[in-house]
Amino acid sequence: MSFENGRGAGEDPAVVAAPMRWDGWGDPARAEPLPFAVRSLLPLLLGRIRRPAPAPALEDVRLEPSAFTVRDADAFAALLGAPHVRTDAEARIRHAGGRSTLDLLRRRDAFQVAPDAVLLPGSHDEVVACLRLAAERDMAVIPFGGGTSVVGALDPERGTHRCVVSLDLGRLSGLLRYDAVSAEAVLAAGTTGPEAERLLAAHGMELGHYPQSFRYATVGGFAAARSSGQNSAGNGRFEGMVTGIRVATPTGDLALGRAPGSAAGPDLIRLFLGSEGILGVITEVTVRVHPRPDERVLESWTFPDFATGVDALRRVAQHGGGPTVIRLSDEAETGVSLAQVGRIGKALAKGASAVTVFEGEDVVARRARTGALLRAAGGTSLGEGAAEDWLRTRFDGPYLRDALLDAGVFCETLETATTWSRLSGLRDAVTTALKTGFADAGRKVFVMCHVSHVYPTGASLYFTLLAPLGSDPLDAWTEIKHAVGDAIMAAGGTISHHHAVGRDHAPWLAEEIGETGIRILAAVKRELDPHGIMNPGAVIGAATPVPGSAAGV
Amino acid sequence: MSFENGRGAGEDPAVVAAPMRWDGWGDPARAEPLPFAVRSLLPLLLGRIRRPAPAPALEDVRLEPSAFTVRDADAFAALLGAPHVRTDAEARIRHAGGRSTLDLLRRRDAFQVAPDAVLLPGSHDEVVACLRLAAERDMAVIPFGGGTSVVGALDPERGTHRCVVSLDLGRLSGLLRYDAVSAEAVLAAGTTGPEAERLLAAHGMELGHYPQSFRYATVGGFAAARSSGQNSAGNGRFEGMVTGIRVATPTGDLALGRAPGSAAGPDLIRLFLGSEGILGVITEVTVRVHPRPDERVLESWTFPDFATGVDALRRVAQHGGGPTVIRLSDEAETGVSLAQVGRIGKALAKGASAVTVFEGEDVVARRARTGALLRAAGGTSLGEGAAEDWLRTRFDGPYLRDALLDAGVFCETLETATTWSRLSGLRDAVTTALKTGFADAGRKVFVMCHVSHVYPTGASLYFTLLAPLGSDPLDAWTEIKHAVGDAIMAAGGTISHHHAVGRDHAPWLAEEIGETGIRILAAVKRELDPHGIMNPGAVIGAATPVPGSAAGV
Repeated sequence: MSFENGRGAGEDPAVVAAPMRWDGWGDPARAEPLPFAVRSLLPLLLGRIRRPAPAPALEDVRLEPSAFTVRDADAFAALLGAPHVRTDAEARIRHAGGRSTLDLLRRRDAFQVAPDAVLLPGSHDEVVACLRLAAERDMAVIPFGGGTSVVGALDPERGTHRCVVSLDLGRLSGLLRYDAVSAEAVLAAGTTGPEAERLLAAHGMELGHYPQSFRYATVGGFAAARSSGQNSAGNGRFEGMVTGIRVATPTGDLALGRAPGSAAGPDLIRLFLGSEGILGVITEVTVRVHPRPDERVLESWTFPDFATGVDALRRVAQHGGGPTVIRLSDEAETGVSLAQVGRIGKALAKGASAVTVFEGEDVVARRARTGALLRAAGGTSLGEGAAEDWLRTRFDGPYLRDALLDAGVFCETLETATTWSRLSGLRDAVTTALKTGFADAGRKVFVMCHVSHVYPTGASLYFTLLAPLGSDPLDAWTEIKHAVGDAIMAAGGTISHHHAVGRDHAPWLAEEIGETGIRILAAVKRELDPHGIMNPGAVIGAATPVPGSAAGV
Repeated sequence: MSFENGRGAGEDPAVVAAPMRWDGWGDPARAEPLPFAVRSLLPLLLGRIRRPAPAPALEDVRLEPSAFTVRDADAFAALLGAPHVRTDAEARIRHAGGRSTLDLLRRRDAFQVAPDAVLLPGSHDEVVACLRLAAERDMAVIPFGGGTSVVGALDPERGTHRCVVSLDLGRLSGLLRYDAVSAEAVLAAGTTGPEAERLLAAHGMELGHYPQSFRYATVGGFAAARSSGQNSAGNGRFEGMVTGIRVATPTGDLALGRAPGSAAGPDLIRLFLGSEGILGVITEVTVRVHPRPDERVLESWTFPDFATGVDALRRVAQHGGGPTVIRLSDEAETGVSLAQVGRIGKALAKGASAVTVFEGEDVVARRARTGALLRAAGGTSLGEGAAEDWLRTRFDGPYLRDALLDAGVFCETLETATTWSRLSGLRDAVTTALKTGFADAGRKVFVMCHVSHVYPTGASLYFTLLAPLGSDPLDAWTEIKHAVGDAIMAAGGTISHHHAVGRDHAPWLAEEIGETGIRILAAVKRELDPHGIMNPGAVIGAATPVPGSAAGV
C-alpha cells in the first residue's frame, strides 16, 4: 500500500509488533482518526463523502455454528493438547480472512463467515498429524501465517468438505539452526519478520526482507506467497533468498535444498514458493542472510514526469547502480504525499518523486553511481528529506487505510509487473480500467501509481486508489477488479508481482500460465493432496481435484 | 572438465565451431596427439600405460537394424519433409549419446546402440506434430540439442516403446525477437552458444553464459539441464537469465514469462529448467541480456593451500567483491597445470592457484575490492599470466580428453556443490570414494579438484580424474561412480551442480529430493506425457509412468 504517510513507529525492523487488531491493521493502540492533512485533501479529490455506519464490536459479530464437532475437538486435542484446538468465536473471527480491503469490509458486517475451528500445531510433526487427521475427518485446511494475505488466500472455503479449519502456524517460531560459515539460517515457518530479524541480529546478521506486511507476516508466508520486499533492488525477491524448505503434505514430507546451486532435476523448492497452501504446509525455511548493514545513505529525487522517471529507473536496473531501495511515484502519488507532509507546492507537485536507499558496503560509491545515472536521465536530487519520511513510515500505510474506511473512503491497492517496453501500456490499461469502472459505478476515483521493484528486464507497477465507499463497495469493487484483471492480461502484465493469487486472482491464472500450466498444478495437487483438503479454491480455483479421484492418503 | 591446457582456439565467443566429430569432442580438425608436457607427466602420475586397440572408423560401426519402418518414415516425412527424417547409420550414430567419457568409450566399440531414426523439425509447430505422431506410433522421443550431455540424457532408451527417435532441434535456430528497451531476447532452442552470442553481438549485447560445452551446446540445452557457466560469479546461473520459455508437450503447449518478477502461483518455468526432456521440449527461451563488456581485467592468485583459498573465495562470495569469474584449483590441479605450461616449480606447485576475471563496468574497482579480500585471506597476486592461459583455453579441455583416451588414459569429470560449512567434508568424501574405488579395481588414479562456482552460502566442487584405461573401463567406472554418488549424498552434497541428472545420476535423485519429490515429477510427467514417450528413464528413472495409466493424448 502506498498511501504511506502518517505517524511512524520508528523503523527498527527487530521491534516485534503488538498482536494484530481483529478488524483492521496492526497494533490496536495505533488506530487513530484521519490526519488533518488527509482529511482536508479528500473533498478535493473525491467530493463529499458519507461516513458509514459504525462497525460491530467483536462480541457482537454473529457466526454460523461451528461444524467442528466435539469428537473432532477430542481427536485434535489428543494430538495438540486442548488449548491448541480453538472453537471460540474470537479465535474463529481472527482467522476469518486476510487484510485486503474486502476482508476489512467483511469484518464490518454483523454476520461473518469464519473457519469452524483453529488448530495450533507446535511442530512439523504436529502439522503432519493435523493434515492426516483432517483428511480422515473430511476437513478443508487453510494454512494461516501472519494473516496478512490481501488476495483471499485465507478465505474459510470448505469446498466439498464437511468443515474447514484454520491451521495457525504461530507456534512454529524461531531460529532452528544458524550456520555462520555458510551465512545460512533455518527459520520456523511461523516466525514473523521482526522476530526473524531480532533472532538474526543476535548473530550480527539480517535477512533484509521488508514487504509492507513485514511487522505481521511470517517467513512461511513470504515463501508461500512469493513475496517481494521494499529492499528488493538490493536484496532480491524472497524466492532468491530461500535455499531450502521443509514441507508437510497430506501424503508425504519434503526436505529440499542441499546446495545453493544445483542441476539435480527441476528446482522443486520453486514449486512450493507461490503455492499458497494448496499443496501442503511449508514448516521450515532455510534462507541466506548477510551482515546487518552498518551504513545507510538516503537520497530523494524528482523527475519532470513519471515517464522520465521510469526511464531513469530502467537505466539504474540495467547498469547496476546498486541501490538497496529504489522507487518512483507518479505525479498523483507525489502530490498527495507532499500534501500530507505539508510541503505541497506547484512546481514540485507537477513532478514525480523517487526515493533511493543504499545499505551495506560501498554505499557512497553506489549512491554516486546511481545518482549519476538518475541525473543523466533528467533527475534532480532533493537531498535526504523525502527518503527519510518514506523510511520512517514505510510499514504504516495500512493504518491509514483503516482510518479512511472509518471516514467512508474505499482505499485499495493492486499491483502487476511486466517488461520495460510494455510498462507504459500496462499502466495506461490499468488506469483506464479503474477510471472506467468507477465511472460506470457512478463514483469518483483517485488513482496513484508507483514503481517499487525494478529488474534488468522490467519492473512492477503498484496502484493505490481512493473512492467514496458507497453503499455496495464489495460488489462494486469485485466488478471493477475483474475489469482490471482482464486489462492486465491484455496488456501483457502478470496478475500479481508480489501479492500472489489466493482466490481473488485465481480467475486470471489460467490465462497467465495457460490451461497446460493449470493442469500441471492440479496434477501435483492431486498427487500430494488426493482428497483436495489443502486450501480448496485457492490459486487454481475450480481446477482442484475431485475428492477420491486419486489414491487415498 | 578442468584439465584445461593445450592449444587455444582463441576466445571470441561469437566464433561458431565446425560440426562436432562423431567419436570425440569438437572440431575434427583440432584433434591431435597428447602434448609433450602431458605425455611426460603421465608415467609419473599413473605408471606404465597401455595404448588401447584403435577405434573403428564411422563406416565400420555396426548397428541393430532400425525399428523405424517405411510407414513411420512416410508419416514423419509428410510432416517435416523427407530430408528431415533420417535413418542412415551416420545420422543414427551421431545421435547415439552425449559426450561423457562413457559415451566416448561406447563410440569406440564395433557394435553400438543408436536411435532408430533422427527427426529434424523446423518449428515449434513441427515439434508439437512430431510429439503427437510419436505418441500415436508408440515411439520414445529423445530431445537432442548440441549433443553435449555428460550424464546420459541422450541415451537412446526406448523404454516400453516400439522404437526410439532422436528429436534434433538444430533447425530451430536464431534470434526470434529482440527487445532493446527491456534488454530481453527470444532465442530458438537449438541456437548454439556461439550463434546466440553472434546474433546478440549485432545489437551490442551479450548473453554471457559460458559452460565448457559452450561452442556446441544450445540455448535449449542450457535450459533443460539447468546449466551454469564459467562466468557464473558475475552473470549467474543460466536459470537466472531465463525470463520466459515456450514448451511443446505431448498434450499441450506452454508459454511462460510475462514479467521478470511475479507471484502468479509457483514459477512453472523452473519446473522445465532441469527437466531434461522428460516433460516436453523447450522450443524457445527468453533471456535477459546485457551490453557486451568492453573492459576486461584479469588477475591470477596463489594460496598456501586449497583450504585457505576456499576460505578466501567464500569471503569474496559473501562480501560481494564482484568478479565475473573466480575459480580455485587444488594443489594437484595447480601442479599439473603448471607442469603443462612448463612452469612447474617446487614452491608454486605446493600451493593452490586461482583465477579472477572482471568484465563489464567498474572493473578496476571490482578487481581492487576482490583483490583486497583475497590478499587479506592469504592470497598472493601473480599478475595476469595464468588467468590469460585459462581464458584462452577455457573451452578446450575436452580435446585433451580425446588424446588421453587414445593414449590409454581414462579421464573423466564429476561435480557437486554444497554449503561452505560442508564443502571440505564433501571434498574429502568424494576423494576417498574415488581413491578407494580405483584401488579396489587395482588401478592408480590421480584426482584433481577445483571450485568454479561460488554463492554466498556455498560453492561447487569439480573433480577431474586420470587413471589407466584398463580392460573394462565402463564397468569399473560405473561401479566407482556409484560409490561416489553415495558419498556425495552422505556428505550432504547435490548429485549435480551443473551437469544435470540424465540417466547416470537418476539413482540418486530420489535420495536428494525424496520419494515425495519423485512422486511430484512423475505426476507432472504422467499429466503431460501420459504414454511416457519423453526421454524414458531419464531424471526420475524407473518412476516413469506406466503407459496407459492416465488419460490418452
